[in-house]
Amino acid sequence: MTNISTDKVRLGIIGLGAQGSTYARFISTGMVPNMEIGAICEPDPSKADLLRTEYSGVPFFTDYIEMLDSGEVDAVVTCVPHYLHPEMGIYALQRGVHALVEKPAGVYTKQVAELNAFAATKPDLTFAIMFNQRNNPLYQRIKQIVDSGEIGRIRRTNWIITTWWRPQGYYDQSAWRATWGGEGGGVLVNQAPHQLDLWQWICGIPRSVYAKVAYGFRRDIAVEDEVTAVVDYGDGATGTFVTATHDLVGTDRFEILGDNGKIVVENSKTATVTRLKRPERDISDGMDMQDVQRLFTGQLKTDDYYTTEVIEFESPWGAQHAGVLENFAANIQDGTALLAPGSDGINGVRLANAIHLSSWTGKEIPLDFDEDDYLIELNKRIREEGKFPER
Amino acid sequence: MTNISTDKVRLGIIGLGAQGSTYARFISTGMVPNMEIGAICEPDPSKADLLRTEYSGVPFFTDYIEMLDSGEVDAVVTCVPHYLHPEMGIYALQRGVHALVEKPAGVYTKQVAELNAFAATKPDLTFAIMFNQRNNPLYQRIKQIVDSGEIGRIRRTNWIITTWWRPQGYYDQSAWRATWGGEGGGVLVNQAPHQLDLWQWICGIPRSVYAKVAYGFRRDIAVEDEVTAVVDYGDGATGTFVTATHDLVGTDRFEILGDNGKIVVENSKTATVTRLKRPERDISDGMDMQDVQRLFTGQLKTDDYYTTEVIEFESPWGAQHAGVLENFAANIQDGTALLAPGSDGINGVRLANAIHLSSWTGKEIPLDFDEDDYLIELNKRIREEGKFPER
Repeated sequence: MTNISTDKVRLGIIGLGAQGSTYARFISTGMVPNMEIGAICEPDPSKADLLRTEYSGVPFFTDYIEMLDSGEVDAVVTCVPHYLHPEMGIYALQRGVHALVEKPAGVYTKQVAELNAFAATKPDLTFAIMFNQRNNPLYQRIKQIVDSGEIGRIRRTNWIITTWWRPQGYYDQSAWRATWGGEGGGVLVNQAPHQLDLWQWICGIPRSVYAKVAYGFRRDIAVEDEVTAVVDYGDGATGTFVTATHDLVGTDRFEILGDNGKIVVENSKTATVTRLKRPERDISDGMDMQDVQRLFTGQLKTDDYYTTEVIEFESPWGAQHAGVLENFAANIQDGTALLAPGSDGINGVRLANAIHLSSWTGKEIPLDFDEDDYLIELNKRIREEGKFPER
Repeated sequence: MTNISTDKVRLGIIGLGAQGSTYARFISTGMVPNMEIGAICEPDPSKADLLRTEYSGVPFFTDYIEMLDSGEVDAVVTCVPHYLHPEMGIYALQRGVHALVEKPAGVYTKQVAELNAFAATKPDLTFAIMFNQRNNPLYQRIKQIVDSGEIGRIRRTNWIITTWWRPQGYYDQSAWRATWGGEGGGVLVNQAPHQLDLWQWICGIPRSVYAKVAYGFRRDIAVEDEVTAVVDYGDGATGTFVTATHDLVGTDRFEILGDNGKIVVENSKTATVTRLKRPERDISDGMDMQDVQRLFTGQLKTDDYYTTEVIEFESPWGAQHAGVLENFAANIQDGTALLAPGSDGINGVRLANAIHLSSWTGKEIPLDFDEDDYLIELNKRIREEGKFPER
């Protein structure tokens, strides 16, 4: 179905807001060699002029279904409010158009599960999600280290990620932002989905979560701007995840402790990897009382027990997103493995939903919670808000 | 009652283990100018020889009550297993002897409340606790910054403190260690009490706690070697506290976010203090859409919004403990304000008890939990363990 004359995947961009116009620029400036802009869909007429001058010659639609049916696009990316991702993904796949959904895959797991179930019936079509951070070489390397067993079974994970300060004016930009009915949540659905994904991608999916969430804590918004969650991996291992949008001097510090080592990632830029020369439990068991004495008097050399490596990569802005677009197109073209299969998108949504549910009920929530329970609670908040229809 | 000939407070040291012998050395080498060793009480006869050679001339007792009644001491310090601190404190005060209890003040709040209640009936006697970290100039400065309101009302606190790696041999040193009946807990009662105290001393007492605690997780012990707790301050502010004894490459990172600034303490050594030039909420509210745009394109200069100060102090080993001993003696002599009044000891015990209770019940526990509930649960574990009498 790809354009025979150029062999490039013709992408239809749905929504030319901040994200959609960025992707358009990446493609039009050649950052995604196996892709071209097939068409653009933007319902806002005020943006039409910009489109026609900047992307002259590119077919323009105000209705994305018309674009899907036009034959101008092989694939689409959904740069629209989160609630719309699942239905747009389904409509695209129904019409034989490959789908790259923006993060989060949706707002509530029930709709994302429907998307995944439908996508599973279309194995010949490519279904992916824009988890550009999976294309960050630093996180790829960390996943590799953890997956290979170099630091052993995980004991504990802790991530404080508050580097997305958002002033009140950001929230006041549009009526759907930071509302239950329009956006479906705050920092968990807008800013943190990448980290909610990476955390599970690297460390595994927890069994349950307990969370304290503050809604409109330091911003005039209905949704959450402060989250503290503790997860239980079911084998004694635990984790914490802290995020907020009101920390002007944000923190980004991710720590993973394993049986055979430790990784500390600072500012998503520098990872300090400690590899023990023997499993920690063996070191502990192998020390006699004299060693213990030496330990407490500072006479044990830590170098005898571990090595330390500091890892940093250059990751210029844009390269991650462009790389995901390229990987998506390559999967369409020749079956190159996807960095972020679309079906993975549900994990972060499930964790975000469980965090909300825990804060609403005051209980620890299993990750396999009843998805109808979440929707009922979400609709309750949409109803009280009174601005958007229930889901 | 102090020794008229020297004007020094004559301290009776109860227990000449690691801690007691350290204090004896501090005093005998003149690190505590207003104190002298009045007597030593050590029930273990194998230590008697050491005592007689190293502290010749110092009265020696095997029964601490006899020492209290001997007239040789003005004050005592209780360097004995945690369960004994409250009763020894009470017996000393009953006999008109000033009491410095080791940390933790006790194992369960009920016994510590009894100690506090009794001490309150003896206002003329000095009752203090060995929270030597309160004598760390770095934490004193941080408390001063927080108390003065420089960083505003607290929004969030996070402490990961895992810098006390303990090999199995440490736990196997004595029969009471890391047992329910002999020690009453693991990392929460032995290693972390200083941080449980500092955390509340600086950031205030939380309203409730929810915790995941792993017992004998990576050590062959009955008690906890891994703790993840989330606290709720009752006003939307939250905190986390993570501690463990099996992290060979320990982390010590304490972060306090306030309405007007932030403090990050690393390794109990370096504090990075950010002071906002205006309250964060004002900065947020004062930004128009153009500022928001500039923010996202990296055109806002952070220097316009805050200043950063890095604070470090020298705190040579021993100075903190010696300083607490000196402050205790000074309070006896001339009423100098106590760094760590004995009655403060209950706060950390209460938090440790609440963390245990939460993990045992799977529920969020208010800090004013019923202290009988805790003792019932603790005794259940002592009974199952079958090594020590119930309390």
